[in-house]
Amino acid sequence: MKKILIVGLGLIGGSIAKGLTKKGYEIYALDKNVDTIKYAKKNKIIVDGFTDNIEYIKNFDRIIFSLYPKTFVDYIKKNNKFIKEGAIVTDVTGVKTKIVKEIQNLLKSKAEFIPMHPMAGKEKYGIKNADEKIFENANCIITPTRKNTKKGIDFAKKIARDLNFRKVSMLSIEKHDEMIAFLSQLTHCIAVALMVCNKSDKLVDYTGDSFRDLTRIANINEDMWTELFLMNKKYLIKEMNEFIESFEKLKKSIEKEDTKEMKKLMRISTKRRKKFDKE
Amino acid sequence: MKKILIVGLGLIGGSIAKGLTKKGYEIYALDKNVDTIKYAKKNKIIVDGFTDNIEYIKNFDRIIFSLYPKTFVDYIKKNNKFIKEGAIVTDVTGVKTKIVKEIQNLLKSKAEFIPMHPMAGKEKYGIKNADEKIFENANCIITPTRKNTKKGIDFAKKIARDLNFRKVSMLSIEKHDEMIAFLSQLTHCIAVALMVCNKSDKLVDYTGDSFRDLTRIANINEDMWTELFLMNKKYLIKEMNEFIESFEKLKKSIEKEDTKEMKKLMRISTKRRKKFDKE
Repeated sequence: MKKILIVGLGLIGGSIAKGLTKKGYEIYALDKNVDTIKYAKKNKIIVDGFTDNIEYIKNFDRIIFSLYPKTFVDYIKKNNKFIKEGAIVTDVTGVKTKIVKEIQNLLKSKAEFIPMHPMAGKEKYGIKNADEKIFENANCIITPTRKNTKKGIDFAKKIARDLNFRKVSMLSIEKHDEMIAFLSQLTHCIAVALMVCNKSDKLVDYTGDSFRDLTRIANINEDMWTELFLMNKKYLIKEMNEFIESFEKLKKSIEKEDTKEMKKLMRISTKRRKKFDKE
Repeated sequence: MKKILIVGLGLIGGSIAKGLTKKGYEIYALDKNVDTIKYAKKNKIIVDGFTDNIEYIKNFDRIIFSLYPKTFVDYIKKNNKFIKEGAIVTDVTGVKTKIVKEIQNLLKSKAEFIPMHPMAGKEKYGIKNADEKIFENANCIITPTRKNTKKGIDFAKKIARDLNFRKVSMLSIEKHDEMIAFLSQLTHCIAVALMVCNKSDKLVDYTGDSFRDLTRIANINEDMWTELFLMNKKYLIKEMNEFIESFEKLKKSIEKEDTKEMKKLMRISTKRRKKFDKE
């Protein structure tokens, strides 16, 4: 079971390929870009791969889809028939509620889809920037549904462990999407909104490290994140509203020069933030 | 002119003392805490220092005040009389409009106050965490007014250069405060507001690096930042409102599923953010 097909050799798919190849897996790939396949073969990231040979999927008992959310769903709709009976399939998609049930329904009882979300990335794209080390300090969330089996879950866990994730957790698809709305999507929205303010264009010369840290994620892949935001709209809008409420509370305390309230909010912030420091 | 008194040996004062001592200055200090003075002397960060001997100020032609904003103003009010005729005085205060004119008026023609803001720091306090390396990757802003002389400005520039700041700039006190409201104070408000949201207390286990980076500054010294926010209230509230407007614009585009607008905002964000990357 160490022979795996990866569909989509972008930054994440490529990093998974690199990491698993180093752990002795035999990795094959499908990607729409011929240069990507050539590069991956030449650099021994994969054993072999194709751009157009869809039927190739038939040969694999284990498949990792590393595609944008919509592309992933469309791909399964179109190529479901080529997936091998009894195969176990996983993914890397950053939203779950909107896609997991659809994929599981499409696959029916033929193959098992065990959803996974490696919470890793960087602000660069493509196989050439692939690096298995991005997983080392990151969390991997596995989000099984009632349709999953122990065998499927164990496959996802094994992949995550072999990729050296710092932590592997299990969450329901709903809890996952709520968590991701707050920790990842809301923070990307904040960074984007900050960069869209006119001032950010004029103050580059004075920018310090804390502003740089805060806006690093403002360098954003608009196609992927537009899909992710819309697929998680319900939870994201809720978190955006909660953030606005919290921000307005702080603003009001400053306007009213209510130093007691200001200090209270800062003490809560400091106390909570300290829990986030790694040992 | 390499004999300097530093008033206030906290993280910043202590880091300045360390950096200048390494460059061959003779550094003396006043601090309210006897252990701080003992530690600094023992570790050869200063030549000598006192906790209560205010008249000691008389001996110095060059003084750096490294105090909280209010403490600084109160200190000058009280001890103005001990400052030497013709002395050049600088500071490290993070807001300028509210304090610079007051200090310059208090000092009258007796001594020159050339305001300086080393835009550096860390989330730890006190002489024991002092480290002159915090200046190396940072900007230093000098904010002269019409009352300043070339001699005064040159003193501030020399200090900044000897502390190895990456960049030394000059700004008016108003432009400084507007810039700091956006780049530093607004970002601290965002980080605090994010940590005050209930969710942040529950999701520590799933936190990734981008959330950590974004909220690093949420670990905040409530006494100092309350003073800084209130002293710069006019500019800060303006920037907070502009941020809310920008955030609401993005939120509305998500609510309306206006992908064209969402992508437009993300492209602006990405393009601007790229300018912030250091070579």
